[in-house]
Amino acid sequence: MTIGGDGRILKHVLNDVADLDRVFHALADPGRRLMLERLGRGPASVSELGKPLSMSLAAVVQHVQILETSGLVRTQKVGRTRTCSLNPATLRSAERWMSERRGLVERRLDRLGDYLAETDDPAAPAPGDQA
Amino acid sequence: MTIGGDGRILKHVLNDVADLDRVFHALADPGRRLMLERLGRGPASVSELGKPLSMSLAAVVQHVQILETSGLVRTQKVGRTRTCSLNPATLRSAERWMSERRGLVERRLDRLGDYLAETDDPAAPAPGDQA
Repeated sequence: MTIGGDGRILKHVLNDVADLDRVFHALADPGRRLMLERLGRGPASVSELGKPLSMSLAAVVQHVQILETSGLVRTQKVGRTRTCSLNPATLRSAERWMSERRGLVERRLDRLGDYLAETDDPAAPAPGDQA
Repeated sequence: MTIGGDGRILKHVLNDVADLDRVFHALADPGRRLMLERLGRGPASVSELGKPLSMSLAAVVQHVQILETSGLVRTQKVGRTRTCSLNPATLRSAERWMSERRGLVERRLDRLGDYLAETDDPAAPAPGDQA
């Protein structure tokens, strides 16, 4: 396990547009999201990940590769078994991109809401008036 | 503006797998993310959204339609101008899906870190021992 590597991966994803492309593309498939939901409960082998999905092992492997390339999943091969685990740092960096955009809009809507609430009250001073 | 509609859209996105597909697919394109970054700063017309992108107006319109279908963007046509705005509720519901998965893994890694820190200290009691 390379907990120390998270910082590097996080920086990498935030700096590179193509990395965000890969993360969101990986998340856009319901089968891959099912795999991530399973990995949320703990590491799993490739065949375990494929069990609830009605697809060939080759297709499962391909999905795992897309998840690994995106940085959402790390894999480690011991003997004949490849164990997958979810990399929370990659999810976090994609969430940050989203929450930054959302935050700007929400703050503006809040200010608009405050302004409308004030102007609804006929006793309230008009914007720009000194209290 | 239908602020009251956010709750409905939020519920909708969280309940439907295909909705998350559409949101993450919409986010997977760098041009569409540039449009969302612009809309983070405030509403804009379709032609304003297309300005920094070297593509035809038809291509811009197509991207806006993908963003609108995903629920990430709302549009309103007044006269000949279609004004786009970012819908923070859709971003929030996709972020929630991600943060729920991430939270499970982070809590498990924290517990593992605590356990390793304890077992690194030779004076610490073994797990399961009473203090």
